[in-house]
Amino acid sequence: MAKILVIHGPNLNLLGEREPAIYGEQTLDDINKMLKDTAAKHQVEVDCFQSNHEGAIVDQIQAARDQYEAVIINAGAYTHYSIAILDALRSFKGPVIEVHLSNIYQRESYRHRSLVSEAATGGIFGLGALSYKLALLGIIEMLNL
Amino acid sequence: MAKILVIHGPNLNLLGEREPAIYGEQTLDDINKMLKDTAAKHQVEVDCFQSNHEGAIVDQIQAARDQYEAVIINAGAYTHYSIAILDALRSFKGPVIEVHLSNIYQRESYRHRSLVSEAATGGIFGLGALSYKLALLGIIEMLNL
Amino acid sequence: MAKILVIHGPNLNLLGEREPAIYGEQTLDDINKMLKDTAAKHQVEVDCFQSNHEGAIVDQIQAARDQYEAVIINAGAYTHYSIAILDALRSFKGPVIEVHLSNIYQRESYRHRSLVSEAATGGIFGLGALSYKLALLGIIEMLNL
Amino acid sequence: MAKILVIHGPNLNLLGEREPAIYGEQTLDDINKMLKDTAAKHQVEVDCFQSNHEGAIVDQIQAARDQYEAVIINAGAYTHYSIAILDALRSFKGPVIEVHLSNIYQRESYRHRSLVSEAATGGIFGLGALSYKLALLGIIEMLNL
Amino acid sequence: MAKILVIHGPNLNLLGEREPAIYGEQTLDDINKMLKDTAAKHQVEVDCFQSNHEGAIVDQIQAARDQYEAVIINAGAYTHYSIAILDALRSFKGPVIEVHLSNIYQRESYRHRSLVSEAATGGIFGLGALSYKLALLGIIEMLNL
Amino acid sequence: MAKILVIHGPNLNLLGEREPAIYGEQTLDDINKMLKDTAAKHQVEVDCFQSNHEGAIVDQIQAARDQYEAVIINAGAYTHYSIAILDALRSFKGPVIEVHLSNIYQRESYRHRSLVSEAATGGIFGLGALSYKLALLGIIEMLNL
Amino acid sequence: MAKILVIHGPNLNLLGEREPAIYGEQTLDDINKMLKDTAAKHQVEVDCFQSNHEGAIVDQIQAARDQYEAVIINAGAYTHYSIAILDALRSFKGPVIEVHLSNIYQRESYRHRSLVSEAATGGIFGLGALSYKLALLGIIEMLNL
Amino acid sequence: MAKILVIHGPNLNLLGEREPAIYGEQTLDDINKMLKDTAAKHQVEVDCFQSNHEGAIVDQIQAARDQYEAVIINAGAYTHYSIAILDALRSFKGPVIEVHLSNIYQRESYRHRSLVSEAATGGIFGLGALSYKLALLGIIEMLNL
Amino acid sequence: MAKILVIHGPNLNLLGEREPAIYGEQTLDDINKMLKDTAAKHQVEVDCFQSNHEGAIVDQIQAARDQYEAVIINAGAYTHYSIAILDALRSFKGPVIEVHLSNIYQRESYRHRSLVSEAATGGIFGLGALSYKLALLGIIEMLNL
Amino acid sequence: MAKILVIHGPNLNLLGEREPAIYGEQTLDDINKMLKDTAAKHQVEVDCFQSNHEGAIVDQIQAARDQYEAVIINAGAYTHYSIAILDALRSFKGPVIEVHLSNIYQRESYRHRSLVSEAATGGIFGLGALSYKLALLGIIEMLNL
Amino acid sequence: MAKILVIHGPNLNLLGEREPAIYGEQTLDDINKMLKDTAAKHQVEVDCFQSNHEGAIVDQIQAARDQYEAVIINAGAYTHYSIAILDALRSFKGPVIEVHLSNIYQRESYRHRSLVSEAATGGIFGLGALSYKLALLGIIEMLNL
Amino acid sequence: MAKILVIHGPNLNLLGEREPAIYGEQTLDDINKMLKDTAAKHQVEVDCFQSNHEGAIVDQIQAARDQYEAVIINAGAYTHYSIAILDALRSFKGPVIEVHLSNIYQRESYRHRSLVSEAATGGIFGLGALSYKLALLGIIEMLNL
Repeated sequence: MAKILVIHGPNLNLLGEREPAIYGEQTLDDINKMLKDTAAKHQVEVDCFQSNHEGAIVDQIQAARDQYEAVIINAGAYTHYSIAILDALRSFKGPVIEVHLSNIYQRESYRHRSLVSEAATGGIFGLGALSYKLALLGIIEMLNL
Repeated sequence: MAKILVIHGPNLNLLGEREPAIYGEQTLDDINKMLKDTAAKHQVEVDCFQSNHEGAIVDQIQAARDQYEAVIINAGAYTHYSIAILDALRSFKGPVIEVHLSNIYQRESYRHRSLVSEAATGGIFGLGALSYKLALLGIIEMLNL
Repeated sequence: MAKILVIHGPNLNLLGEREPAIYGEQTLDDINKMLKDTAAKHQVEVDCFQSNHEGAIVDQIQAARDQYEAVIINAGAYTHYSIAILDALRSFKGPVIEVHLSNIYQRESYRHRSLVSEAATGGIFGLGALSYKLALLGIIEMLNL
Repeated sequence: MAKILVIHGPNLNLLGEREPAIYGEQTLDDINKMLKDTAAKHQVEVDCFQSNHEGAIVDQIQAARDQYEAVIINAGAYTHYSIAILDALRSFKGPVIEVHLSNIYQRESYRHRSLVSEAATGGIFGLGALSYKLALLGIIEMLNL
Repeated sequence: MAKILVIHGPNLNLLGEREPAIYGEQTLDDINKMLKDTAAKHQVEVDCFQSNHEGAIVDQIQAARDQYEAVIINAGAYTHYSIAILDALRSFKGPVIEVHLSNIYQRESYRHRSLVSEAATGGIFGLGALSYKLALLGIIEMLNL
Repeated sequence: MAKILVIHGPNLNLLGEREPAIYGEQTLDDINKMLKDTAAKHQVEVDCFQSNHEGAIVDQIQAARDQYEAVIINAGAYTHYSIAILDALRSFKGPVIEVHLSNIYQRESYRHRSLVSEAATGGIFGLGALSYKLALLGIIEMLNL
Repeated sequence: MAKILVIHGPNLNLLGEREPAIYGEQTLDDINKMLKDTAAKHQVEVDCFQSNHEGAIVDQIQAARDQYEAVIINAGAYTHYSIAILDALRSFKGPVIEVHLSNIYQRESYRHRSLVSEAATGGIFGLGALSYKLALLGIIEMLNL
Repeated sequence: MAKILVIHGPNLNLLGEREPAIYGEQTLDDINKMLKDTAAKHQVEVDCFQSNHEGAIVDQIQAARDQYEAVIINAGAYTHYSIAILDALRSFKGPVIEVHLSNIYQRESYRHRSLVSEAATGGIFGLGALSYKLALLGIIEMLNL
Repeated sequence: MAKILVIHGPNLNLLGEREPAIYGEQTLDDINKMLKDTAAKHQVEVDCFQSNHEGAIVDQIQAARDQYEAVIINAGAYTHYSIAILDALRSFKGPVIEVHLSNIYQRESYRHRSLVSEAATGGIFGLGALSYKLALLGIIEMLNL
Repeated sequence: MAKILVIHGPNLNLLGEREPAIYGEQTLDDINKMLKDTAAKHQVEVDCFQSNHEGAIVDQIQAARDQYEAVIINAGAYTHYSIAILDALRSFKGPVIEVHLSNIYQRESYRHRSLVSEAATGGIFGLGALSYKLALLGIIEMLNL
Repeated sequence: MAKILVIHGPNLNLLGEREPAIYGEQTLDDINKMLKDTAAKHQVEVDCFQSNHEGAIVDQIQAARDQYEAVIINAGAYTHYSIAILDALRSFKGPVIEVHLSNIYQRESYRHRSLVSEAATGGIFGLGALSYKLALLGIIEMLNL
Repeated sequence: MAKILVIHGPNLNLLGEREPAIYGEQTLDDINKMLKDTAAKHQVEVDCFQSNHEGAIVDQIQAARDQYEAVIINAGAYTHYSIAILDALRSFKGPVIEVHLSNIYQRESYRHRSLVSEAATGGIFGLGALSYKLALLGIIEMLNL
């Protein structure tokens, strides 16, 4: 059974609580559950990982190289300045889809540039939890599962 | 039955022929057929429109206001400089999903900025024809169809 | 009887409907009627032209050279990037007044620069439909009508 | 009878004398007289104030808050760097129209940016003394006089 | 007999009339006739196309792919902002020579950047109608005609 | 008894009246009284000066050199462009504390840069009238009063 | 008894040792003791936290949401690039005061921009350990303790 | 006897006292006396004017138009941002020499740009009081005195 | 017999050897011979000069003023930063055509700006040795030879 | 025996595996062994440390102050944005040599700026594992071992 | 007898011939003779050197270190980009005065920055040949000759 | 016996004399002797070349192509603007190591960019004469001598 890793970056553990006008009212557990349910329907397995530590996210991406066939990543604030995460993603061979809950291009100018985009296959932004779900459906289709 | 408009911008009529290393080998007809098939499965209707003329795209978006519930738009080159299309999209009340076949953030710097993003609900890039398909699935989910 | 051409650019046909908080509630027909009434009082003739097509606006400005004594132009979104319209206006010998309904200098930064200003005699912005009316009164005074 | 304050910024007292190719041959007295005549025809009163001192202009705008219903301001050179005048204008509740004799967008690049525009209702530029006259007619119409 | 397409962009139909100090006194018909005469001497055929519409130029370049062996293009104002024309030119396989009547690098800064140059084989600027003639001679030599 | 000068820049005389959402509802007299009361409790003397004139503020800072042991300055709009005030402050030997009622780094970009900061010992921003009070307490502590 | 969290960012554990010309000779323990003493005098409680790890600071800010009524933060080097800390601070409801020992606006240009300022209520800089003390006094006053 | 006006801008009244490492130890009176002595030797008359007020300097330049044959100006801090002084200088017909005591191009970057240079005939910088003396000798030579 | 000077800048003596993928396989001797042959056919004389020394190129251009009727110049790397060559070219009265073998606008960004263009009549780029040949034909036509 | 600390930043643990075209085929263990062998020959001791965590690298540099006489650091991606590492390095008294395997100046523009360079004694880049070896030889020579 | 070196940069040998509207009608010989005459009157000796070669100017400045007590330099075009000349000037211990015939701050923007200013004691610009003469008088006064 | 060319750019002939605080007290002869001694120990031959002339350095690099197996270059000031030297280096097939005595990234901003780096294999900076020695050792190792 194909395994897919979902990475949530800093402050996403506060989802549902932090600035709900921007990020929606669903909690991270809600999103993870929705992803696991969707995965189950398509006979794939999803693991979810959240950290506020840039280094821990880099460690996790490195570890993913032998265990997962694809990565879905919402790097949160690190999206915009972590060259370390960008470098780690470049060492991952399978498809990588970048995800954002909000439309980062309608927010502060320092959120307009994504370093993750430079390493990702593609990305989905602005659709709330649906961004994650479509990313998962996309991965499944790309892996011909 | 809900109707969704898909707009393809300049040079997308050459898909399959123009720079296939970047844009893939599917023709625009292939993509349109795939979208219509997917729509049919979910009981929605999709109309497809392509033009190389900025003004014609503006006209079409304006006309869509009374006829369609959502818009999927790949504005091609106009993505990066057409404030006229941006203004037209802002007059559309339903969800708008921006689509790109390629990962525009890995290309020339003048393709890194999207004016369409400023008016769109969200967007999907870099996944080839799959970008369109996921946009359609997303719209369907958003409209609770 | 002196003839004056009024050009309305893209999306201005939606006036009264599109973002009324910014552009006011009058329709384009209301404005055109007001201009024609004002013109009539001063024994001049006003023709009004609207298009979403940059090329059509260029064509119209070129055609105006032999038919009109002055031009009033609200180039809408094209104001900010159409060098083609700028070039066309430079071929027009009579006075050209640039008009904007809103105060473009209080909006998005990409609306702060006007290419039309480089070819216009002068301009009026931020006064809603009154911007047009004052432009017409100004033209009349400039032509000593 | 409604009262309107006209403010002329630095060096405008030299009008008719300084760089007539740019600013025209009318003196400031000519313009003030024309404005007062026009005002009289419409049963409003116009007071004119000129100063080369930024602080004096700020003082005058502050004082205007209880005495005038509208302000017409040509802040001259201060247009481009006086945040103090901008702040003062923001404390004035009635309509403010910015005026320029010349088309500042066709001059040196440091004259392209107007801080006054950020506080003004709207503006008129490039039409010589007529810029002032139209501003006055506009104010009269806005106040429904 | 080899066929070569010559494309003239916006406002070039006014040649001889518009700003003759910059663009010379020859009309577009004069230039087209000169090109056809030169072509005839070298046993090639030249077709000339002019439009003020960006979309029409894109259409024409696309259509040229099966009909012409080379393109000479003076995109006029579109040179500086039309990514759509750039993209269309990239789909054309034969040689493309960019032409300008004036020396665009001695004019306004917004004319210093050419998007056409990014897709053209090479270019000729600043030599008036001679720019076109040399482009034609160059094409003939490149095609070994 | 140690003397401390408090300088209030342009438009601060309108406090309580101008944009209360940003600057609070206290008047300048309220703030001055609070400062004098606080000073009295600590056996120091505070003099307050307000002017809309950049030159007058420069004059006052120069005069302060022999009369005051410290300066607290809220230069208002001049904060952002007055090199003259910066130069004057550099001639003052005692501690200088810069004060802002609002958080200038959350406002317009032209308010993000402070020239006063280049000459001040330190600064306090964003705490309303409390910014002034803490500055006074800080000065008292720095002077070991 | 109200609790206030003081956060010290990277390298602040070296205070008194690292570049004393810039940061002073007091150690971090000295500062923490001074803050606790001051707090005790005003019947509030202060906890101090230092880390060189961006993620650990984010974790701590998140944890503070239920335990503390205010935050005083000197984010050290992270001040200038950590959007993650900025996002975490935005999830904290009480007052946040940014503190710097040195006047960051008189140092290297990459220290002139503070991301913390975008989330803080206000800030104090340049007054050495006194910056912290005034921040604490300010918090106490703001909480009406 | 020819009359020459010397204008000293803000803070120059503190010469000899303010930052002597940069500006030297001579007072403004020393410099004025040296200029008057030099003038006397060459049968010209020098008047000296100092103000910290931008508006007062503008007033003085305007008044100079009928009274003086040349102007020597060290606009101090206003050199770098006063468009008002620049505009006033442009109304003066005779030669204008810009003077700086220090080499402004070796100081802070905001002192590298001189608006006065745009209106001055020429300038002298970096030579201390000698900058003024050479300016005076230059004026005398230019006027063929 | 009219004489034309061809100037080749630094590293062009390595043509055919250096980066042939960019500059082609012809040597400089090949190009010079081709130019002389072409000149001979049209009864003009061509002299060719190559140097790696900026000063030597300036010397040569100065010397050309009395000896040649036109200049063809490929200033190589100096194109992009030699204001000295630009100044020298401005002293030459006859036509000057700038030549580049490669399309400099498709290369590194520091090759996009040409100082030579500011002094040249016009230019030809991107056509390999043909760039030179067309320049020569153009000169002949311009001189009506 | 002198001790030298070698610090490897994020993703360097993947050496030999990640993008070998850029970073070479040696593993980090190979490099560490080569450094220890070289050190042994010169009677010095080398310790090697790798982490993906910015904070852990800061901690390690702080700890090095009492234990090592010199530092060799390849901060990987953190080179380009970690002011925290820069600050930590500034607290280390002995020589610091910055190392890069690749020539960072020939890569993406966001890798052109090194914050480490601002704190390092010097640096070596582009020579693969040899960069480290030369750094070690340099340190040995600098310490006169 | 004190010796002073005058250095003239590229294209200054064409003075009187090249762009007389900008540089005046005097030849370089005229200026040199005027300088030698002035020097003779003050018992100093002047040597004049002109070259179009950057390297030759560097050589000459280096050689001047043992032979001359002061340098007057008009580096012409090299003023704006020669870091090599800047570095050479920094090795010269005596006073260096930078000279320009024209007001470089009123010309093309690439002439606004002077690298020579970073090494010069001071400078004189915009006064034609008089710029040189005043520089010489200034040197004489500085050397107390 | 392998031959290696060492190139010293402008003003390096003054080493030991010019700004010893930055460049150290060794003369160029000292460095050359040290390099020759080191080379002798490893059975390679080193030739040293110094010039203040950009063109002469280009000539020398071109000549090196048939005579040397590697180049060590400290291009001095030309490092930062000589595209001509960059182009010449690109024609050299063997390894090229860039050397700087000082840490150019801690100096003026115009010394932060190196054009040489774009053509060099790698570089060493900031270690004084040791920079050269390590470069030589590196070359020897790279050539497997």
